[in-house]
Amino acid sequence: MGLTSSDLLDTALSVQLVEAADIIIADVKKLLTALKQRAKKHKDTPCIARTHGVHAEPTTFGLKVAVWYDEMRRNLERMEQAREMIRFGKLSGAVGTYANIDPYVEEYVCEKLDLKPANIATQIIQRDHHCQFVTTLALVGCTLNKIATEIRLLQKTEVLEVEEPFFKGQIGSSAMPHKRNPITCERISGMSRLLRANAQAAFENISLWHERDISHSSVERVILPDSAIALDYMLQKLTPIIDGLLVYPKNMIASLTKTNGLIYSQRVLLELMKKGLTREAAYEIIQRCAMQVWNETSSFKDILCRDRKVRKYLKAGEIDACFDIKHYTRHVDMIFKRVGLK
Amino acid sequence: MGLTSSDLLDTALSVQLVEAADIIIADVKKLLTALKQRAKKHKDTPCIARTHGVHAEPTTFGLKVAVWYDEMRRNLERMEQAREMIRFGKLSGAVGTYANIDPYVEEYVCEKLDLKPANIATQIIQRDHHCQFVTTLALVGCTLNKIATEIRLLQKTEVLEVEEPFFKGQIGSSAMPHKRNPITCERISGMSRLLRANAQAAFENISLWHERDISHSSVERVILPDSAIALDYMLQKLTPIIDGLLVYPKNMIASLTKTNGLIYSQRVLLELMKKGLTREAAYEIIQRCAMQVWNETSSFKDILCRDRKVRKYLKAGEIDACFDIKHYTRHVDMIFKRVGLK
Amino acid sequence: MGLTSSDLLDTALSVQLVEAADIIIADVKKLLTALKQRAKKHKDTPCIARTHGVHAEPTTFGLKVAVWYDEMRRNLERMEQAREMIRFGKLSGAVGTYANIDPYVEEYVCEKLDLKPANIATQIIQRDHHCQFVTTLALVGCTLNKIATEIRLLQKTEVLEVEEPFFKGQIGSSAMPHKRNPITCERISGMSRLLRANAQAAFENISLWHERDISHSSVERVILPDSAIALDYMLQKLTPIIDGLLVYPKNMIASLTKTNGLIYSQRVLLELMKKGLTREAAYEIIQRCAMQVWNETSSFKDILCRDRKVRKYLKAGEIDACFDIKHYTRHVDMIFKRVGLK
Amino acid sequence: MGLTSSDLLDTALSVQLVEAADIIIADVKKLLTALKQRAKKHKDTPCIARTHGVHAEPTTFGLKVAVWYDEMRRNLERMEQAREMIRFGKLSGAVGTYANIDPYVEEYVCEKLDLKPANIATQIIQRDHHCQFVTTLALVGCTLNKIATEIRLLQKTEVLEVEEPFFKGQIGSSAMPHKRNPITCERISGMSRLLRANAQAAFENISLWHERDISHSSVERVILPDSAIALDYMLQKLTPIIDGLLVYPKNMIASLTKTNGLIYSQRVLLELMKKGLTREAAYEIIQRCAMQVWNETSSFKDILCRDRKVRKYLKAGEIDACFDIKHYTRHVDMIFKRVGLK
Repeated sequence: MGLTSSDLLDTALSVQLVEAADIIIADVKKLLTALKQRAKKHKDTPCIARTHGVHAEPTTFGLKVAVWYDEMRRNLERMEQAREMIRFGKLSGAVGTYANIDPYVEEYVCEKLDLKPANIATQIIQRDHHCQFVTTLALVGCTLNKIATEIRLLQKTEVLEVEEPFFKGQIGSSAMPHKRNPITCERISGMSRLLRANAQAAFENISLWHERDISHSSVERVILPDSAIALDYMLQKLTPIIDGLLVYPKNMIASLTKTNGLIYSQRVLLELMKKGLTREAAYEIIQRCAMQVWNETSSFKDILCRDRKVRKYLKAGEIDACFDIKHYTRHVDMIFKRVGLK
Repeated sequence: MGLTSSDLLDTALSVQLVEAADIIIADVKKLLTALKQRAKKHKDTPCIARTHGVHAEPTTFGLKVAVWYDEMRRNLERMEQAREMIRFGKLSGAVGTYANIDPYVEEYVCEKLDLKPANIATQIIQRDHHCQFVTTLALVGCTLNKIATEIRLLQKTEVLEVEEPFFKGQIGSSAMPHKRNPITCERISGMSRLLRANAQAAFENISLWHERDISHSSVERVILPDSAIALDYMLQKLTPIIDGLLVYPKNMIASLTKTNGLIYSQRVLLELMKKGLTREAAYEIIQRCAMQVWNETSSFKDILCRDRKVRKYLKAGEIDACFDIKHYTRHVDMIFKRVGLK
Repeated sequence: MGLTSSDLLDTALSVQLVEAADIIIADVKKLLTALKQRAKKHKDTPCIARTHGVHAEPTTFGLKVAVWYDEMRRNLERMEQAREMIRFGKLSGAVGTYANIDPYVEEYVCEKLDLKPANIATQIIQRDHHCQFVTTLALVGCTLNKIATEIRLLQKTEVLEVEEPFFKGQIGSSAMPHKRNPITCERISGMSRLLRANAQAAFENISLWHERDISHSSVERVILPDSAIALDYMLQKLTPIIDGLLVYPKNMIASLTKTNGLIYSQRVLLELMKKGLTREAAYEIIQRCAMQVWNETSSFKDILCRDRKVRKYLKAGEIDACFDIKHYTRHVDMIFKRVGLK
Repeated sequence: MGLTSSDLLDTALSVQLVEAADIIIADVKKLLTALKQRAKKHKDTPCIARTHGVHAEPTTFGLKVAVWYDEMRRNLERMEQAREMIRFGKLSGAVGTYANIDPYVEEYVCEKLDLKPANIATQIIQRDHHCQFVTTLALVGCTLNKIATEIRLLQKTEVLEVEEPFFKGQIGSSAMPHKRNPITCERISGMSRLLRANAQAAFENISLWHERDISHSSVERVILPDSAIALDYMLQKLTPIIDGLLVYPKNMIASLTKTNGLIYSQRVLLELMKKGLTREAAYEIIQRCAMQVWNETSSFKDILCRDRKVRKYLKAGEIDACFDIKHYTRHVDMIFKRVGLK
């Protein structure tokens, strides 16, 4: 019978990639479970939101985790699409014409292997299928990097709002015995670079000459197992970190007070606008008061209360009401519901 | 009201990207139409299939084009997924808590703009959405590069089975007046590099610090318009090339005869196996005869007919029957049907 | 005369790239001057060194800047090598054989343009030259990203050891009037992604078919100006940031005390080893004491002084001597001399 | 003594990378020797130069190889620069301050290991060093891809001017016994994608946080050995291909005649211009005659001789003189001398 080796190899590759996809999808689901629990646990744990690395406004730690949860659900969908995209077999002969093989063989074998026969092929299944697989792994890896980077940022000594779990007997640094380092998160960050680099090679593999040149093969022998194994590893490492994450709500509260109330500036701005000031006029007043806080040690609320221009429009009680964290978290339940965390 | 500029910018960006997606989707559909017509026109035009750049077995030019058609249909699906993925608005305030804006505003505005409200966000819509958009553009670009590369290969002087349309008055080369060069296809090949390079930056944009750092912004100002415009341009250039492609069936026939019949070697191999020879034994005989053709000027059929070992198993008529191109193209109709070209 | 347009274009391109290199080299030198001044000014300003984002041991802010200075000097050398590598002209005709042009013309024109004639060429100068240019721009961009990232990390609200200069009247955030964000550094971080993405396309441009295909051209029209202009912009933005950087030595001192003395752990470890303990034994003791500091509020020194195992080997005075920052900075002058900052 | 593990690892890494560089430099030198011999052997073997894949003008096969030789000499220089750039040791302690180690130790160890002490460092040698190493490997890989691609293009069945050596008993295709495929060159093409993808990760490794985060480490464990080993392999595979390359001068001559003389069009153009025609007028005449050749079967020379407009300016003998291949190769010796191949 006219079975060609490229038919067998390409179909076997699909089987392997579907298996890899299944493993990764299972990993993703476990991470989703961990994220869900973590998000719910800290739904109402207040902490500071930061933009540009600078304190912005209050939020909750649960909301941070819910953002990751929502993104990982999109990644689950992407992985499922990538799995369907790679689930193709191909037994159509040396150049895809079924010259020396009956199309029925392809149908039969594919059904046995739970694959779909490729509509059409050359000597091989077209490499856009594989490229989508590899770029999807890379994209998922970027999300893991994002989560890992956030943990690393929150574990910085000055912040210390969370810590990667640190196991008894673990050595943080051979030289500096006091250290507890987020090394697993750092490793995840690093490995995401490998995944997106491999995606670059996968893009280049699409354009092969005529009915096939074999340049893609040496590339795939590296990037397909490497990317799949790396992402599996990253997911397997991140899930217990989310499960066992050390969260320090006290430090989160401490962070919220670090700017002496500046984080409430937008609300005061809006109150002034309600009293009839233009945005520009209100902004100028608030920014002036805010800059005093950076330069002095008084609290923002005190400076506002002492400021004549502010007081022309706002009473002490009205100013005071602006500094209420509950105002910022009143929509958390609604958001959790939207994300499917209820 | 507490509308923040990042809310407005991010939502406006989604509107623009959806519009860009619509333009590109329309482009893709036009290319699909051109490919469909081209495939059908040459469904039965015989030509040689090449693997490793070397003549392999007969196929038809329509099948080549049908491979592209099938791949572009997958790309259409990918573009539609990418469009849905980017079709999100976000008006949830400075850090995504709706602190100073009513969630209803988001719903209302999104509905007016034909966007869906993001389930959850930080200061911005998460960049995995945009990354999928940019990597999808890159993947489509790789397919265009593949089509363009095939045309370039088939237009090589020694092959000349097709030519990029050459307009009257067009100058092929300022120095060499005889030249007709596939410069538009070469341009498409080049531009696909830009698209996949931009994908690299899009991957890196996913991991932003905390509730947002603005490092993605300078990147997106370049890669989002550049990638969308480049792909639109490439599609707009490739479609008329497919429409007006100069196809030379005579040269295709000439190519088919270039190897003096070697391209039928697999079939003779299989016939020998039918007569009871092992694959190894049959292979050795065929390879020996085939190598004579490369080194001499006799035809493969003549050499086979003169070969004592071959003739021990096959009669002249049986050998002759192997050299029938119709054997190779007998499943073309079935394949076209599968691909949806009927 | 047989001047071909590709000869003229390629030679003109070299002239432009040399000019671009000169501009960037001048930019780099200005940045070096700014870094030199900044390093010298803070040579002895103590601050904490961090590894894994966690406090490690004392260093000085000048040393941080000196690391950047040293790296930028390597970048200056790389830029000068890239400039030499691109400084080639080529007037050897349509395929590099001087078929219709006298080699003297090439020599004459190149001399006038301060270029060297390429030893040999095809229709064009080989693209490894241009690739080295673009990858060098990318590498320099990565260094700028590193500097920008460090400033962003040090400007985080909890750290606030430095700030990007903030101009009077500048608006940090339209929504949150209190904010001072390192947006220029963030922009530099982002733009470095563009540079390394472009490098990817430059690599792909090297392999052209035969004596030239024109696929590189559409790529170069984008990446050459974009990369050169982006890097020039980044350098022009970073230099005034280094010049006007707001440095807060008080906050640096505050950071040094934040871990209650843990940052001196290595030195105590080494003292215990001097007294005859194995590294393992000493490590266990120190780590145990250190973990108490993370969990309690006592200082590391106090805990050590109270620890029976420690006191078996070290007197109070010996412990005290370990907590001397001067021990950590005693080689700063020597390092500055090595780097050429004296 | 205060030796930290990162000092030891980083210094040991440099030793390994210098060794890797030495192996690759030796590989490059062997390839240069093979290219030199190949270039000299075919210095005067005429063949067609192609631009855009289309026949352009005559050249010699030696010139093609000399282009590769010249580029590989630049790559040798780049490898030597990269070797010097990585030849640094670092024993300056946990954050680069020599806090617990005498600088003399660094000097002593580096001298023993034939390394230079890094001027300054953090916990590690700065990663711009390693990035230059990896991007240089990638750039060399792109040149190898270029050589491999040219061989693949010249081995296309229709061209067959060269062939990758084919060993007795080698199987070209399990299905098609007649095939001789340039699979090693295709593998080299593929592997070059891995090298440039790894370069992307190396760029990202430069920006580490503060005095070091360890995200680069997981990346380097993959890309440093993989890139070095891959390039070593590619060089070891390409050199015997160049040594044993099957070159078919007869087929090269056949290619030169394939366009019926069109490849001499530029020279006729220039002759017409010498007679006083403007470039535009001459171009129009030549292009018109040339297009007839593509469409008919007459030779270009015959068509020119029959053309009234041409004959108004050129005598038959003058036309005939344009069709002399020696005109195109008269500067080959000079070029070889420039390239150092004499």
